[in-house]
Amino acid sequence: MTDVERVEYTPVPVRETLIMMKDISELMIDLAYSAALFNNRELAEEVMELESKMDTLVYVLNMNLMLAARDKEDAESLAGVAKVGSLMNSISDAAADIAGIVLKDIGVHSIVREVFQRTEEHLARVMLSETSILAGRTVDDLDLAAEVGVDIIAVRRGKHWMINPEKEIILPEDVLVARGTELGLEKLVKAARGELEYLG
Amino acid sequence: MTDVERVEYTPVPVRETLIMMKDISELMIDLAYSAALFNNRELAEEVMELESKMDTLVYVLNMNLMLAARDKEDAESLAGVAKVGSLMNSISDAAADIAGIVLKDIGVHSIVREVFQRTEEHLARVMLSETSILAGRTVDDLDLAAEVGVDIIAVRRGKHWMINPEKEIILPEDVLVARGTELGLEKLVKAARGELEYLG
Repeated sequence: MTDVERVEYTPVPVRETLIMMKDISELMIDLAYSAALFNNRELAEEVMELESKMDTLVYVLNMNLMLAARDKEDAESLAGVAKVGSLMNSISDAAADIAGIVLKDIGVHSIVREVFQRTEEHLARVMLSETSILAGRTVDDLDLAAEVGVDIIAVRRGKHWMINPEKEIILPEDVLVARGTELGLEKLVKAARGELEYLG
Repeated sequence: MTDVERVEYTPVPVRETLIMMKDISELMIDLAYSAALFNNRELAEEVMELESKMDTLVYVLNMNLMLAARDKEDAESLAGVAKVGSLMNSISDAAADIAGIVLKDIGVHSIVREVFQRTEEHLARVMLSETSILAGRTVDDLDLAAEVGVDIIAVRRGKHWMINPEKEIILPEDVLVARGTELGLEKLVKAARGELEYLG
Protein backbone atom coordinates (compact mmCIF):
# COMPACT_ATOMS: atom_id res chain seq x y z
CA MET A 1 0.00 0.00 0.00
CA THR A 2 0.93 3.63 -0.33
CA ASP A 3 0.53 5.57 2.87
CA VAL A 4 -0.07 9.21 2.17
CA GLU A 5 -0.61 10.97 5.46
CA ARG A 6 2.76 9.92 6.82
CA VAL A 7 4.78 11.77 4.17
CA GLU A 8 3.38 15.08 5.30
CA TYR A 9 5.50 14.85 8.39
CA THR A 10 8.40 12.58 7.50
CA PRO A 11 10.88 12.98 4.65
CA VAL A 12 10.58 9.88 2.46
CA PRO A 13 12.64 8.46 -0.40
CA VAL A 14 11.98 10.13 -3.74
CA ARG A 15 11.07 6.80 -5.30
CA GLU A 16 8.28 6.13 -2.76
CA THR A 17 6.92 9.64 -3.13
CA LEU A 18 6.79 9.40 -6.90
CA ILE A 19 5.05 6.01 -6.70
CA MET A 20 2.46 7.54 -4.37
CA MET A 21 1.95 10.43 -6.75
CA LYS A 22 1.43 8.07 -9.68
CA ASP A 23 -1.05 5.93 -7.70
CA ILE A 24 -2.93 8.99 -6.49
CA SER A 25 -3.12 10.61 -9.93
CA GLU A 26 -4.58 7.40 -11.38
CA LEU A 27 -7.04 7.02 -8.52
CA MET A 28 -8.10 10.68 -8.91
CA ILE A 29 -8.81 10.27 -12.63
CA ASP A 30 -10.94 7.17 -11.95
CA LEU A 31 -12.78 8.87 -9.10
CA ALA A 32 -13.35 12.04 -11.12
CA TYR A 33 -14.77 10.11 -14.08
CA SER A 34 -17.10 8.20 -11.75
CA ALA A 35 -18.10 11.40 -9.96
CA ALA A 36 -19.07 12.93 -13.32
CA LEU A 37 -20.81 9.77 -14.50
CA PHE A 38 -23.07 9.54 -11.45
CA ASN A 39 -23.10 13.28 -10.67
CA ASN A 40 -21.89 12.12 -7.26
CA ARG A 41 -20.77 14.86 -4.87
CA GLU A 42 -19.21 12.45 -2.38
CA LEU A 43 -16.85 10.99 -4.97
CA ALA A 44 -16.05 14.51 -6.16
CA GLU A 45 -15.20 15.50 -2.59
CA GLU A 46 -12.81 12.54 -2.27
CA VAL A 47 -11.06 13.80 -5.40
CA MET A 48 -10.61 17.18 -3.72
CA GLU A 49 -9.20 15.52 -0.58
CA LEU A 50 -6.66 13.70 -2.73
CA GLU A 51 -5.84 16.89 -4.59
CA SER A 52 -4.70 18.52 -1.37
CA LYS A 53 -2.57 15.44 -0.58
CA MET A 54 -1.03 15.69 -4.02
CA ASP A 55 -0.12 19.32 -3.47
CA THR A 56 1.72 18.29 -0.30
CA LEU A 57 3.50 15.47 -2.12
CA VAL A 58 4.80 17.77 -4.86
CA TYR A 59 6.31 19.91 -2.12
CA VAL A 60 7.83 16.90 -0.35
CA LEU A 61 9.18 15.51 -3.63
CA ASN A 62 10.93 18.72 -4.58
CA MET A 63 12.32 19.16 -1.07
CA ASN A 64 13.79 15.66 -1.18
CA LEU A 65 15.16 16.16 -4.69
CA MET A 66 17.01 19.26 -3.55
CA LEU A 67 18.60 17.35 -0.70
CA ALA A 68 19.54 14.50 -3.07
CA ALA A 69 21.37 16.59 -5.66
CA ARG A 70 25.05 16.88 -4.77
CA ASP A 71 26.59 17.92 -8.06
CA LYS A 72 25.72 19.17 -11.54
CA GLU A 73 25.16 15.66 -12.92
CA ASP A 74 22.78 14.82 -10.06
CA ALA A 75 20.87 18.05 -10.55
CA GLU A 76 20.56 17.43 -14.29
CA SER A 77 19.24 13.89 -13.98
CA LEU A 78 16.99 14.73 -11.01
CA ALA A 79 15.41 17.62 -12.93
CA GLY A 80 13.68 14.96 -15.06
CA VAL A 81 12.29 13.36 -11.91
CA ALA A 82 10.93 16.73 -10.76
CA LYS A 83 9.33 17.12 -14.18
CA VAL A 84 7.57 13.75 -13.93
CA GLY A 85 6.32 14.75 -10.47
CA SER A 86 4.94 18.01 -11.77
CA LEU A 87 3.20 16.13 -14.59
CA MET A 88 1.53 13.74 -12.14
CA ASN A 89 0.36 16.91 -10.44
CA SER A 90 -1.03 18.27 -13.74
CA ILE A 91 -2.98 15.07 -14.20
CA SER A 92 -4.38 15.37 -10.69
CA ASP A 93 -5.29 19.02 -11.34
CA ALA A 94 -7.26 17.90 -14.40
CA ALA A 95 -9.08 15.32 -12.25
CA ALA A 96 -9.85 17.97 -9.64
CA ASP A 97 -11.27 20.23 -12.36
CA ILE A 98 -13.60 17.45 -13.51
CA ALA A 99 -14.70 16.93 -9.89
CA GLY A 100 -15.19 20.70 -9.70
CA ILE A 101 -17.85 20.50 -12.44
CA VAL A 102 -19.82 18.18 -10.16
CA LEU A 103 -19.26 20.24 -7.00
CA LYS A 104 -20.14 23.55 -8.67
CA ASP A 105 -23.51 22.14 -9.74
CA ILE A 106 -22.83 23.22 -13.32
CA GLY A 107 -24.66 20.05 -14.27
CA VAL A 108 -23.01 17.10 -15.96
CA HIS A 109 -24.18 16.98 -19.57
CA SER A 110 -25.55 13.63 -20.80
CA ILE A 111 -22.74 13.55 -23.41
CA VAL A 112 -20.11 13.52 -20.65
CA ARG A 113 -21.96 10.77 -18.84
CA GLU A 114 -22.13 8.70 -22.02
CA VAL A 115 -18.40 9.10 -22.57
CA PHE A 116 -17.54 7.94 -19.06
CA GLN A 117 -20.14 5.19 -19.14
CA ARG A 118 -18.15 3.15 -21.67
CA THR A 119 -15.94 1.55 -19.07
CA GLU A 120 -17.30 -1.72 -17.73
CA GLU A 121 -16.01 -1.23 -14.23
CA HIS A 122 -17.16 1.50 -11.91
CA LEU A 123 -16.22 2.90 -8.53
CA ALA A 124 -18.21 3.12 -5.35
CA ARG A 125 -17.57 4.90 -2.08
CA VAL A 126 -19.07 3.76 1.19
CA MET A 127 -18.46 4.36 4.88
CA LEU A 128 -18.07 1.26 7.03
CA SER A 129 -20.71 0.88 9.75
CA GLU A 130 -20.16 -0.49 13.27
CA THR A 131 -22.23 -3.54 12.43
CA SER A 132 -20.60 -4.42 9.09
CA ILE A 133 -19.27 -7.95 8.65
CA LEU A 134 -16.24 -6.37 6.96
CA ALA A 135 -15.07 -4.40 10.01
CA GLY A 136 -11.97 -5.59 11.85
CA ARG A 137 -10.59 -7.64 8.95
CA THR A 138 -7.71 -6.98 6.58
CA VAL A 139 -8.33 -6.16 2.93
CA ASP A 140 -6.32 -9.21 1.79
CA ASP A 141 -8.19 -11.43 4.19
CA LEU A 142 -11.60 -10.33 2.90
CA ASP A 143 -10.58 -11.44 -0.62
CA LEU A 144 -13.41 -9.39 -2.12
CA ALA A 145 -12.17 -9.94 -5.67
CA ALA A 146 -12.96 -13.63 -5.36
CA GLU A 147 -16.03 -13.21 -3.14
CA VAL A 148 -17.96 -10.47 -4.93
CA GLY A 149 -15.79 -9.32 -7.85
CA VAL A 150 -14.65 -5.98 -6.43
CA ASP A 151 -11.32 -4.52 -5.33
CA ILE A 152 -10.88 -2.03 -2.52
CA ILE A 153 -8.50 0.44 -4.17
CA ALA A 154 -8.32 2.97 -1.35
CA VAL A 155 -9.33 3.46 2.25
CA ARG A 156 -9.64 6.87 3.89
CA ARG A 157 -9.50 7.11 7.69
CA GLY A 158 -10.24 10.73 8.52
CA LYS A 159 -7.59 12.61 6.60
CA HIS A 160 -5.34 9.57 6.29
CA TRP A 161 -5.37 7.77 2.92
CA MET A 162 -4.27 4.20 2.23
CA ILE A 163 -3.90 3.56 -1.50
CA ASN A 164 -3.94 -0.07 -2.71
CA PRO A 165 -4.36 -1.44 0.83
CA GLU A 166 -3.44 -5.05 1.53
CA LYS A 167 -2.55 -5.88 5.13
CA GLU A 168 -4.55 -3.02 6.64
CA ILE A 169 -7.42 -3.79 9.00
CA ILE A 170 -10.51 -1.83 8.04
CA LEU A 171 -12.47 -0.22 10.84
CA PRO A 172 -15.90 1.37 11.39
CA GLU A 173 -16.06 4.90 9.93
CA ASP A 174 -13.38 4.09 7.33
CA VAL A 175 -14.38 5.28 3.86
CA LEU A 176 -13.83 2.52 1.31
CA VAL A 177 -13.31 3.23 -2.39
CA ALA A 178 -13.85 0.11 -4.49
CA ARG A 179 -13.72 -0.79 -8.16
CA GLY A 180 -15.76 -3.54 -9.78
CA THR A 181 -18.92 -4.56 -11.56
CA GLU A 182 -22.21 -2.85 -10.75
CA LEU A 183 -23.58 -5.97 -9.05
CA GLY A 184 -20.42 -6.54 -7.00
CA LEU A 185 -20.33 -2.93 -5.85
CA GLU A 186 -23.98 -3.08 -4.78
CA LYS A 187 -23.19 -6.08 -2.62
CA LEU A 188 -20.11 -4.43 -1.13
CA VAL A 189 -22.06 -1.29 -0.24
CA LYS A 190 -24.73 -3.36 1.51
CA ALA A 191 -22.09 -5.35 3.39
CA ALA A 192 -20.27 -2.17 4.44
CA ARG A 193 -23.50 -0.65 5.73
CA GLY A 194 -24.17 -3.73 7.84
CA GLU A 195 -27.09 -4.90 5.71
CA LEU A 196 -25.60 -8.32 4.90
CA GLU A 197 -24.80 -11.19 7.24
CA TYR A 198 -22.48 -12.95 4.84
CA LEU A 199 -20.75 -12.32 1.50
CA GLY A 200 -20.64 -14.49 -1.63
CA MET B 1 -12.58 1.75 -33.16
CA THR B 2 -12.07 5.46 -32.99
CA ASP B 3 -10.97 6.97 -36.26
CA VAL B 4 -8.98 10.11 -35.70
CA GLU B 5 -7.86 11.37 -39.08
CA ARG B 6 -11.39 11.62 -40.41
CA VAL B 7 -12.50 14.24 -37.87
CA GLU B 8 -9.97 16.73 -39.10
CA TYR B 9 -12.00 17.25 -42.24
CA THR B 10 -15.57 16.34 -41.29
CA PRO B 11 -17.62 17.77 -38.45
CA VAL B 12 -18.53 14.90 -36.13
CA PRO B 13 -20.94 14.52 -33.21
CA VAL B 14 -19.59 15.97 -29.97
CA ARG B 15 -20.04 12.62 -28.24
CA GLU B 16 -17.79 10.79 -30.71
CA THR B 17 -15.15 13.49 -30.51
CA LEU B 18 -15.07 13.40 -26.75
CA ILE B 19 -14.82 9.60 -26.76
CA MET B 20 -11.84 9.85 -29.14
CA MET B 21 -10.22 12.42 -26.89
CA LYS B 22 -10.63 10.20 -23.85
CA ASP B 23 -9.22 7.16 -25.70
CA ILE B 24 -6.30 9.16 -27.04
CA SER B 25 -5.45 10.74 -23.68
CA GLU B 26 -5.36 7.29 -22.07
CA LEU B 27 -3.27 5.83 -24.89
CA MET B 28 -0.87 8.77 -24.66
CA ILE B 29 -0.33 8.30 -20.93
CA ASP B 30 0.39 4.58 -21.43
CA LEU B 31 2.74 5.28 -24.34
CA ALA B 32 4.53 8.05 -22.47
CA TYR B 33 5.10 5.86 -19.40
CA SER B 34 6.46 3.07 -21.62
CA ALA B 35 8.62 5.53 -23.54
CA ALA B 36 10.15 6.73 -20.26
CA LEU B 37 10.51 3.20 -18.90
CA PHE B 38 12.47 1.96 -21.92
CA ASN B 39 13.96 5.33 -22.88
CA ASN B 40 12.35 4.58 -26.24
CA ARG B 41 12.38 7.43 -28.77
CA GLU B 42 9.96 5.71 -31.16
CA LEU B 43 7.25 5.41 -28.50
CA ALA B 44 7.91 9.02 -27.51
CA GLU B 45 7.48 10.11 -31.13
CA GLU B 46 4.13 8.31 -31.33
CA VAL B 47 3.05 10.32 -28.29
CA MET B 48 3.96 13.50 -30.14
CA GLU B 49 1.97 12.40 -33.21
CA LEU B 50 -1.06 11.82 -30.98
CA GLU B 51 -0.54 15.17 -29.28
CA SER B 52 -0.98 16.96 -32.59
CA LYS B 53 -4.15 14.93 -33.25
CA MET B 54 -5.43 15.93 -29.84
CA ASP B 55 -4.86 19.61 -30.58
CA THR B 56 -6.98 19.23 -33.70
CA LEU B 57 -9.71 17.43 -31.77
CA VAL B 58 -9.96 20.18 -29.16
CA TYR B 59 -10.54 22.62 -32.00
CA VAL B 60 -13.14 20.37 -33.64
CA LEU B 61 -14.89 19.80 -30.31
CA ASN B 62 -15.23 23.47 -29.53
CA MET B 63 -16.37 24.27 -33.07
CA ASN B 64 -19.08 21.63 -32.80
CA LEU B 65 -20.12 22.80 -29.34
CA MET B 66 -20.62 26.33 -30.63
CA LEU B 67 -22.85 25.08 -33.40
CA ALA B 68 -24.81 22.94 -30.92
CA ALA B 69 -25.65 25.68 -28.44
CA ARG B 70 -28.91 27.37 -29.39
CA ASP B 71 -29.90 29.13 -26.17
CA LYS B 72 -28.57 30.09 -22.75
CA GLU B 73 -29.41 26.71 -21.20
CA ASP B 74 -27.59 24.86 -23.99
CA ALA B 75 -24.55 27.09 -23.63
CA GLU B 76 -24.49 26.57 -19.85
CA SER B 77 -24.66 22.79 -20.00
CA LEU B 78 -22.29 22.53 -22.99
CA ALA B 79 -19.67 24.64 -21.19
CA GLY B 80 -19.12 21.64 -18.92
CA VAL B 81 -18.51 19.46 -21.97
CA ALA B 82 -15.93 21.94 -23.28
CA LYS B 83 -14.27 21.85 -19.87
CA VAL B 84 -13.98 18.05 -19.93
CA GLY B 85 -12.49 18.32 -23.42
CA SER B 86 -9.90 20.80 -22.27
CA LEU B 87 -9.01 18.52 -19.36
CA MET B 88 -8.45 15.56 -21.67
CA ASN B 89 -6.15 17.93 -23.51
CA SER B 90 -4.31 18.78 -20.26
CA ILE B 91 -3.77 15.08 -19.63
CA SER B 92 -2.40 14.65 -23.13
CA ASP B 93 -0.13 17.67 -22.63
CA ALA B 94 1.28 15.99 -19.52
CA ALA B 95 1.90 12.81 -21.52
CA ALA B 96 3.64 14.82 -24.25
CA ASP B 97 5.85 16.44 -21.63
CA ILE B 98 6.90 13.02 -20.32
CA ALA B 99 7.67 11.96 -23.90
CA GLY B 100 9.62 15.20 -24.26
CA ILE B 101 11.99 14.10 -21.50
CA VAL B 102 12.87 11.09 -23.66
CA LEU B 103 13.15 13.06 -26.91
CA LYS B 104 15.27 15.83 -25.38
CA ASP B 105 17.83 13.27 -24.22
CA ILE B 106 17.66 14.69 -20.71
CA GLY B 107 18.09 11.10 -19.58
CA VAL B 108 15.44 9.13 -17.76
CA HIS B 109 16.50 8.73 -14.14
CA SER B 110 16.43 5.19 -12.73
CA ILE B 111 13.85 6.33 -10.16
CA VAL B 112 11.42 7.22 -12.93
CA ARG B 113 12.01 3.87 -14.60
CA GLU B 114 11.36 2.07 -11.31
CA VAL B 115 8.11 3.93 -10.81
CA PHE B 116 6.82 3.05 -14.27
CA GLN B 117 8.11 -0.51 -14.02
CA ARG B 118 5.52 -1.47 -11.44
CA THR B 119 2.84 -2.19 -13.99
CA GLU B 120 2.81 -5.79 -15.18
CA GLU B 121 1.79 -5.00 -18.70
CA HIS B 122 3.88 -3.05 -21.14
CA LEU B 123 3.53 -1.57 -24.59
CA ALA B 124 5.40 -2.31 -27.77
CA ARG B 125 5.47 -0.58 -31.12
CA VAL B 126 6.36 -2.37 -34.32
CA MET B 127 5.99 -1.75 -38.05
CA LEU B 128 4.40 -4.55 -40.06
CA SER B 129 6.63 -6.06 -42.74
CA GLU B 130 5.54 -7.27 -46.20
CA THR B 131 6.25 -10.85 -45.20
CA SER B 132 4.46 -10.87 -41.84
CA ILE B 133 1.87 -13.57 -41.23
CA LEU B 134 -0.28 -10.85 -39.63
CA ALA B 135 -0.63 -8.73 -42.77
CA GLY B 136 -3.97 -8.69 -44.56
CA ARG B 137 -6.00 -9.91 -41.59
CA THR B 138 -8.37 -8.03 -39.27
CA VAL B 139 -7.42 -7.36 -35.68
CA ASP B 140 -10.45 -9.31 -34.40
CA ASP B 141 -9.64 -12.19 -36.69
CA LEU B 142 -6.05 -12.46 -35.43
CA ASP B 143 -7.36 -12.93 -31.87
CA LEU B 144 -3.94 -12.07 -30.46
CA ALA B 145 -5.26 -11.93 -26.89
CA ALA B 146 -5.97 -15.64 -27.01
CA GLU B 147 -3.00 -16.56 -29.22
CA VAL B 148 -0.13 -14.71 -27.53
CA GLY B 149 -1.65 -12.67 -24.70
CA VAL B 150 -1.42 -9.22 -26.28
CA ASP B 151 -3.93 -6.63 -27.49
CA ILE B 152 -3.40 -4.29 -30.42
CA ILE B 153 -4.59 -1.02 -28.90
CA ALA B 154 -3.80 1.24 -31.83
CA VAL B 155 -2.72 1.13 -35.44
CA ARG B 156 -1.13 4.07 -37.25
CA ARG B 157 -1.19 4.15 -41.04
CA GLY B 158 0.89 7.13 -42.06
CA LYS B 159 -0.79 10.00 -40.23
CA HIS B 160 -4.05 8.10 -39.79
CA TRP B 161 -4.68 6.61 -36.32
CA MET B 162 -7.08 3.80 -35.49
CA ILE B 163 -7.62 3.52 -31.74
CA ASN B 164 -9.01 0.24 -30.36
CA PRO B 165 -9.19 -1.34 -33.82
CA GLU B 166 -11.46 -4.35 -34.36
CA LYS B 167 -12.66 -4.94 -37.92
CA GLU B 168 -9.72 -3.15 -39.55
CA ILE B 169 -7.42 -5.10 -41.85
CA ILE B 170 -3.78 -4.47 -40.97
CA LEU B 171 -1.38 -3.89 -43.83
CA PRO B 172 2.38 -3.80 -44.43
CA GLU B 173 3.94 -0.55 -43.14
CA ASP B 174 1.19 -0.12 -40.51
CA VAL B 175 2.61 0.73 -37.11
CA LEU B 176 1.05 -1.46 -34.42
CA VAL B 177 0.90 -0.43 -30.76
CA ALA B 178 0.20 -3.41 -28.51
CA ARG B 179 -0.23 -4.02 -24.80
CA GLY B 180 0.60 -7.25 -23.05
CA THR B 181 3.12 -9.35 -21.20
CA GLU B 182 6.81 -9.12 -22.08
CA LEU B 183 6.83 -12.59 -23.61
CA GLY B 184 3.69 -11.99 -25.64
CA LEU B 185 5.00 -8.69 -26.97
CA GLU B 186 8.29 -10.29 -28.02
CA LYS B 187 6.35 -12.85 -30.02
CA LEU B 188 4.15 -10.20 -31.62
CA VAL B 189 7.17 -8.12 -32.66
CA LYS B 190 8.78 -11.15 -34.28
CA ALA B 191 5.55 -12.04 -36.08
CA ALA B 192 5.12 -8.45 -37.29
CA ARG B 193 8.66 -8.39 -38.63
CA GLY B 194 8.04 -11.59 -40.59
CA GLU B 195 10.29 -13.71 -38.38
CA LEU B 196 7.59 -16.23 -37.41
CA GLU B 197 5.71 -18.64 -39.63
CA TYR B 198 2.90 -19.24 -37.15
CA LEU B 199 1.60 -17.84 -33.86
CA GLY B 200 0.65 -19.68 -30.68
